[in-house]
Amino acid sequence: MADLTREDFLKLDRKDQLAPFREEFYVPEGVIYMDGNSLGVMPKAASKRVREVTDREWGHDLIKSWNMADWFNAPRRIGDKIAKIIGAEEGEIVATDSTGINLFKAISAALAINSDRSVIVMEGSNFPTDNYIAQGLIEFLGRQHQIRFAEKDSIMEAIEDNVAVVSLTDVHYKTGHLLDMKVITAKAHQHGALTVWDLCHSAGAIPIDLNGVNADFAVGCGYKYLNGGPGAPAFIFVAKRHHGKLKQPLTGWWSHRSPFDFTRDYEIGEGINRMLCGTQPVISLSALEVGVDIMTRADIHKIRQKSKKMGDMFIASVEQKCGDYGFGIASPRNADERGSQVSLTHENSYAIMQALIERGVIGDFRAPEITRFGFTPLYLRYVDVWDAVDILSDVMANEIWKVPKYHVRMAVT
Amino acid sequence: MADLTREDFLKLDRKDQLAPFREEFYVPEGVIYMDGNSLGVMPKAASKRVREVTDREWGHDLIKSWNMADWFNAPRRIGDKIAKIIGAEEGEIVATDSTGINLFKAISAALAINSDRSVIVMEGSNFPTDNYIAQGLIEFLGRQHQIRFAEKDSIMEAIEDNVAVVSLTDVHYKTGHLLDMKVITAKAHQHGALTVWDLCHSAGAIPIDLNGVNADFAVGCGYKYLNGGPGAPAFIFVAKRHHGKLKQPLTGWWSHRSPFDFTRDYEIGEGINRMLCGTQPVISLSALEVGVDIMTRADIHKIRQKSKKMGDMFIASVEQKCGDYGFGIASPRNADERGSQVSLTHENSYAIMQALIERGVIGDFRAPEITRFGFTPLYLRYVDVWDAVDILSDVMANEIWKVPKYHVRMAVT
Repeated sequence: MADLTREDFLKLDRKDQLAPFREEFYVPEGVIYMDGNSLGVMPKAASKRVREVTDREWGHDLIKSWNMADWFNAPRRIGDKIAKIIGAEEGEIVATDSTGINLFKAISAALAINSDRSVIVMEGSNFPTDNYIAQGLIEFLGRQHQIRFAEKDSIMEAIEDNVAVVSLTDVHYKTGHLLDMKVITAKAHQHGALTVWDLCHSAGAIPIDLNGVNADFAVGCGYKYLNGGPGAPAFIFVAKRHHGKLKQPLTGWWSHRSPFDFTRDYEIGEGINRMLCGTQPVISLSALEVGVDIMTRADIHKIRQKSKKMGDMFIASVEQKCGDYGFGIASPRNADERGSQVSLTHENSYAIMQALIERGVIGDFRAPEITRFGFTPLYLRYVDVWDAVDILSDVMANEIWKVPKYHVRMAVT
Repeated sequence: MADLTREDFLKLDRKDQLAPFREEFYVPEGVIYMDGNSLGVMPKAASKRVREVTDREWGHDLIKSWNMADWFNAPRRIGDKIAKIIGAEEGEIVATDSTGINLFKAISAALAINSDRSVIVMEGSNFPTDNYIAQGLIEFLGRQHQIRFAEKDSIMEAIEDNVAVVSLTDVHYKTGHLLDMKVITAKAHQHGALTVWDLCHSAGAIPIDLNGVNADFAVGCGYKYLNGGPGAPAFIFVAKRHHGKLKQPLTGWWSHRSPFDFTRDYEIGEGINRMLCGTQPVISLSALEVGVDIMTRADIHKIRQKSKKMGDMFIASVEQKCGDYGFGIASPRNADERGSQVSLTHENSYAIMQALIERGVIGDFRAPEITRFGFTPLYLRYVDVWDAVDILSDVMANEIWKVPKYHVRMAVT
């Protein structure tokens, strides 16, 4: 294959049907942002919307906004919008709390349904908070349960008849490898197990069809590909067929049958409301809604197509321009097997990423040796991918990463 | 006593040392806001701060803000500021999650310490979410625990040697009656029980001295007297003497010893960090911090003094101007025995409050027959109290509340 040129990337941008979306986001000048898989950029409308919530809804209308601005229904309203993005129905999702807390609710609820079983299957190398939450829950339940850790290739055989819950993330946070939700869910059901899918790295990036794959529970975060803002509230999905038997331990008043009757005793509410607990952070929720609204207008299949192409072009450019610098590729080369990111390995990854960030190419580092580059087709251009690799090549060729300051580790990168 | 006149109220305003604080808040024109005990008004600086967080920290600095803008430490940083308001030390409070979720953590942690005991003492007429959370927790723990419901006057005798936790709200949400934190905590300790205090209706309104009364756990919300914005994150306090044995079930990565090591297994963190779970809603947290900052500059004793005086003047005005209309007073007449609100009873309370709201006097209604008027000395003037009762008198004298539209019940008032 002939060497790629910048013009090849520009040509793809000119044909890109998603290109107009970039105008809806604030992308800082001089920045090539390849970390939308950690914190999505700000929709321009989010700034405006948040101001409206503070100045008009809170500032001027005050308590009346719980009705007038429909604050009370925000978790359901935004949940229904997220449902459209990930193949769920109305009334199956609420936007609320954090991913960890929602995972706690989901696994608890699944264990309550499968109460005669004791094993939870998880991926040992998954983003650790998922494992931590399950570990805390088990301890809390008196250790009658146990986690069976598996890795990508051993998950299927770990699913046996004593498994209560299979709790997995479909896109691996480090390598980006994809798990087959449909096949794993089918296997789980075949053995009487329930699934809890963590969609943090896929919602808004990959076509997800929760009901199509017969998923039971799912959770995900609002601040990555949904562009909901820093620490945006998360979401939780429960398939309608489980609503009748649904219960979880965080039984705050928002999950009550009649929260405004102020009765003394808990009476469980209906449907997905059972997954709510208490009052939600309205300002942050309102920013999330803006990001979700944009995503509902975008064609997720086009997003996926562009992101796969970007990943392929990124890998090809790295090989072409940085082939001599000792990089490995931790992500699957086959785009169909990876999420919306490509991870490189290098023994000096930390310093390399620091140097890149200073040059305006923002990706991130995951210990011990991974640099992670995310592709967010709504605001990242093909030419950005070319330019980013150009800068990477310069950082390597001129050994810019060797500057001592790039080696000073901070708590977080 | 001679009848009160408007001039009496104006005179008090002229002498009021807290008066300058009103300038720091946005109080809508034509509104007398007596619902700060439900949603505090917006500090002018909150609007500005939130815009800075969206446009600069999120929009421009993006992922770097986790360090640069110190987003990561916000729960601890804001917690330390709240500590100054309610008599705690640095490192004893985090601002995080919702009140309900924090209550779940607190009661769980207290039960884990007092694991050989089974009874939780609660006030049956308390704001119900507290009871609901305890009921959900008990169900989840396998029903080995039970709640012993008491009311104000029977709480002391309900505390016996089999009590694990006494979980109470110091200011009653309906009547505003105060519980004596010091006496009840001492009684609890005398019987080996731990206390969980819900400070939703007192933090920022009443001098609270958590360590002075030897409190064990406390929670509270950010959106009432702390003026943190709609659904602002809540807080949780744990006395330092319990940190060594502290554990709670929501073991997300923010409570891990080394969250950025991404190790597979949970290792408990240090101190109050154990009460964290996952990523927090940064935009909403940033608004909360502004409200808390103002409160740390205000003298809580002056706030209390003014709020008691306002309550007394309100009661006197209602008796003087509305004595013939059938109102009862549900709150203690002795200001030392009530929080920062006065509740009236009337069989037509719902319609009366609707009529008041339409006339710009915003309080709230609590079924079946209570109208609730909150006093927030940082932005409410004495003369507002006079004017509010004037409007109430007009609503009653001219039977304005009889207009049919005021009787149409909405989900929430």
